[in-house]
Amino acid sequence: MQENKRISEAVIRRLPRYLRYIGELKEIGLQKVSSAELAEKMSMTASQIRQDFSYFGDFGQQGYGYNVDQLYENIKNILSGDEGFSVIIIGAGNLGTALAKYNNFGKKGFHITGVFDINPKLIGKTINGNVIMSIDMLDDYIRKNNTDIAILSLPRSETKDIAVRIVDAGIKGLFNFSPMDLKLSHDIPIENIHLSDSLMVLGYKIKKYSEEK
Amino acid sequence: MQENKRISEAVIRRLPRYLRYIGELKEIGLQKVSSAELAEKMSMTASQIRQDFSYFGDFGQQGYGYNVDQLYENIKNILSGDEGFSVIIIGAGNLGTALAKYNNFGKKGFHITGVFDINPKLIGKTINGNVIMSIDMLDDYIRKNNTDIAILSLPRSETKDIAVRIVDAGIKGLFNFSPMDLKLSHDIPIENIHLSDSLMVLGYKIKKYSEEK
Repeated sequence: MQENKRISEAVIRRLPRYLRYIGELKEIGLQKVSSAELAEKMSMTASQIRQDFSYFGDFGQQGYGYNVDQLYENIKNILSGDEGFSVIIIGAGNLGTALAKYNNFGKKGFHITGVFDINPKLIGKTINGNVIMSIDMLDDYIRKNNTDIAILSLPRSETKDIAVRIVDAGIKGLFNFSPMDLKLSHDIPIENIHLSDSLMVLGYKIKKYSEEK
Repeated sequence: MQENKRISEAVIRRLPRYLRYIGELKEIGLQKVSSAELAEKMSMTASQIRQDFSYFGDFGQQGYGYNVDQLYENIKNILSGDEGFSVIIIGAGNLGTALAKYNNFGKKGFHITGVFDINPKLIGKTINGNVIMSIDMLDDYIRKNNTDIAILSLPRSETKDIAVRIVDAGIKGLFNFSPMDLKLSHDIPIENIHLSDSLMVLGYKIKKYSEEK
């Protein structure tokens, strides 16, 4: 897959968005779609869509457009593969609990296989079929269960130490909700989710709109 | 504020990130910081930082650097103003409940003032000091309480109708967690948060890493 190395971050970040829109077409039973139709729906240009898809091989046929079901499967396969991913959640507070119950992750191929917390009052309780385990068992669990992703919903002060520990234990990617840009010396994919940042951008735009009126 | 109109989306999106990093410097008691020091911490270039800040006036002094406390207050003020924002949550399911309890929003000036749901079993219960109200009261509440932002944590099928209703009632911005790109004919700021998209990007990168090894 040598040629895939050159695919830019921006193209990769558009893939899940394609999957969502094509999923909607699939839901309404549409069988084929042209790059122009898809472009209009997604507020993009047809040529950008064709170029994005060209990185991954030939999805369409000149003059015919794309077969919706095939296109959906192709993009889903590029993103999640056949097997999907096993995911643990570390930190069973409000956000961690909500994420453990969030069915949309499972639908996209991300299966919650374990939930961990430090609080003795939470350990042993069940969230969405997962018994909350002690954080002391974390390293052992990851070593034995070939876990792909850890969702970190921890206080900022604890996030980095736990991250280093679980990367050493073999975790393959981190999905971090602590309000910090988690960086490690290990070369491992990390997504930092900053809900407050997005809310602040919204606030800024609201302020600007009202000033302009 | 005519000149502010030309500030690009990318610059605006970097502001909350600046605020986080400068907040960390403030926490450890640092009094001044140069653009070069900040650049290194944030993996940016000093000239980009200086250029970003220049859109908002002059934050620093040539050869001295930035006063950390002042810089923090300036950026906070650009983003949230003095008063902050009033926020309602529509949909008190798992995610809506977690967000209602998420203290980080309040710290950044986003104050949850109301929570709404359609489920009679939830209406009347209290989350983090907010009594859950019926969605029937939504329009009235917004009209009477001058509400800035609605966080939508609703099923996809209900999101657009509710969004149109509350925009008509006077809401100023939408923070949408439904797995769809919410678009309205009204000219109103909307942030669509796609947690699954980010998780899929992480999954893609994990797959690529393991293929390359």
